Amino acid sequence: MYLDQEIAEQPIALERLLNQETDTARQIAAAIREFDPAFITIAARGTSDNAARYAQYLFGAQAHLPVALATPSLHTLYGSPPHLGRSLVIGISQSGAGADVRQVLDDAKAQGALTVGITNDPASAVAQSADHHLWLRAGEERSVAATKTYTTELAAIAMIVNALVEDAALNQELTRLPQYVAQTLAEFISSPLRDPGWVERYRYMDQFATIGRGYNYCTAFEINLKVKELCYVTGDPYSEADFRHGPIAVIHTGFPVMVIAPAGKTLPEMLDLLDKLHEKQAELLVISNEDAAFAHAQNAMRLPAMPEWLTPIPAVIHGQVFALRLAGVKGFDIDQPRGLTKVTSTR
Amino acid sequence: MYLDQEIAEQPIALERLLNQETDTARQIAAAIREFDPAFITIAARGTSDNAARYAQYLFGAQAHLPVALATPSLHTLYGSPPHLGRSLVIGISQSGAGADVRQVLDDAKAQGALTVGITNDPASAVAQSADHHLWLRAGEERSVAATKTYTTELAAIAMIVNALVEDAALNQELTRLPQYVAQTLAEFISSPLRDPGWVERYRYMDQFATIGRGYNYCTAFEINLKVKELCYVTGDPYSEADFRHGPIAVIHTGFPVMVIAPAGKTLPEMLDLLDKLHEKQAELLVISNEDAAFAHAQNAMRLPAMPEWLTPIPAVIHGQVFALRLAGVKGFDIDQPRGLTKVTSTR
Repeated sequence: MYLDQEIAEQPIALERLLNQETDTARQIAAAIREFDPAFITIAARGTSDNAARYAQYLFGAQAHLPVALATPSLHTLYGSPPHLGRSLVIGISQSGAGADVRQVLDDAKAQGALTVGITNDPASAVAQSADHHLWLRAGEERSVAATKTYTTELAAIAMIVNALVEDAALNQELTRLPQYVAQTLAEFISSPLRDPGWVERYRYMDQFATIGRGYNYCTAFEINLKVKELCYVTGDPYSEADFRHGPIAVIHTGFPVMVIAPAGKTLPEMLDLLDKLHEKQAELLVISNEDAAFAHAQNAMRLPAMPEWLTPIPAVIHGQVFALRLAGVKGFDIDQPRGLTKVTSTR
Repeated sequence: MYLDQEIAEQPIALERLLNQETDTARQIAAAIREFDPAFITIAARGTSDNAARYAQYLFGAQAHLPVALATPSLHTLYGSPPHLGRSLVIGISQSGAGADVRQVLDDAKAQGALTVGITNDPASAVAQSADHHLWLRAGEERSVAATKTYTTELAAIAMIVNALVEDAALNQELTRLPQYVAQTLAEFISSPLRDPGWVERYRYMDQFATIGRGYNYCTAFEINLKVKELCYVTGDPYSEADFRHGPIAVIHTGFPVMVIAPAGKTLPEMLDLLDKLHEKQAELLVISNEDAAFAHAQNAMRLPAMPEWLTPIPAVIHGQVFALRLAGVKGFDIDQPRGLTKVTSTR
């Protein structure tokens, strides 16, 4: 199995990225400052689209840059792309081979946009065609389900944002990231989670929801995708606010909900939601570093005490391990889920 | 029951909107031209957020304006809003009471943005605080599940885009919209869909996916939300491209998938996806006006021959009726689904 190894490699991959790509991140930041974009557009698919969701909050909150997610079909199918000349356009793709991501970057470049590629392959089409490239340096990812390329994508975004805002405290926090991730992995050695059998409880669950807010909106999406890819369980990822606008209707006794609720600005709203879910007798799996969040939790998935903006990177690891273990209990092929390929070509 | 009446009222509501708000749409278009935004930001929740997804494609394809969906938590929870001074900011809310939508508009206005509210209540906070207001004139919506306010929101967006691009052919097409919607409703009188019992087949379905692309990406989301709100069935809305990047793994024999595949630029990709879903023995419900799309369909939900860009408005009606009938077969309260309120206050 490669997936367990790739999950465990994440602290090293992050350490390597932070050590070796900081200069590139600074060059990209300098180019962004000079270009002075009115907004950012991000083109990505699948797991990388979840990294784009992180970028939306991080660029917004720290650099005050609004972020739009690209609409690739306007470029590839409708042949009527929006004007991106005043935009910084970032393409995120682990393989760098996504034809639609490439097309958005090429159209944007032709319109005068500043383009940046974030990939795990410097020889790829996306890396070669963008004005700037940040190489993830995650090493080859052999498992179909992306893990270390996702967390390094998030870290790459954090590096660019940090280089842009030049805040010493944020930079200091970022250097501790590999350590936070290692501490999270340590949970699987010494906490109640060390017994992989705890996921047996979920062997026959046939639906599932994941809820996060703000920085961890992306985490809800990415954990949901991992469970879908590896365990073939349908489920829905939500922001806490959107969830209250309709989907909360589906919750009934025993409905499994994974909630990402770390200490930070979003915590009060998330605690209130946890109370509501408990009233409805949902089965709660909670990822947090705040004891109050575990009050009604069947399973406590602990994070170290750390700044909220970096929590999406260790938080997703709990979801990766949950999906891996559940797929194991269900007897599924973990590295080669049915019906999936590593590089998906879409238009 | 109000919901059936509100579904049936949609042709009138659209006709009234087109007749009475065209001048307002022109004034908004003139203000947009003068302001010359670099991009558009849309703040919305729930059903209105799906209208924002339509706006993303329509403004992009026809007016070449990129559209970002707002990140309300950066305004309401993090207190660190992005710079929206070069943006047109549109708030969409049927009640006009959403505190988070209001906050995004207020922050944007303070930063120098041009703001537009689209609501069903001219006395509401959103209507009053925006620089311009387009009134949906849908009449009071009593059912908790939004139907006529959604389709009028889509039409309101189409009116603004049309006023902006001033294309006589597009304007001509838009005037036929109420007729297209009436023709779609006629399906429930004379086609195989006239027998409401056909939904009994889905009484015990416990999962569900909806797939659309481009203009109908929003339709996949909105139908999914209706089924979730009214029938408490979890499911996932997807773009055809994202679906191939992972979630396709969940499909197995009999898995119900509703596919929105009208004639137009997205049809070849959708037909290819329908073939793949058929190979995996999915149960296909297809919304289209193209016979080829019905080849493997268990249920054919027909649309009139019409331009692709307007299809989301009649297409969603098939989903509204499906959700209403399925909720009926399941014995649920249709106007007051459990756990939901008409106006949801989120931060």
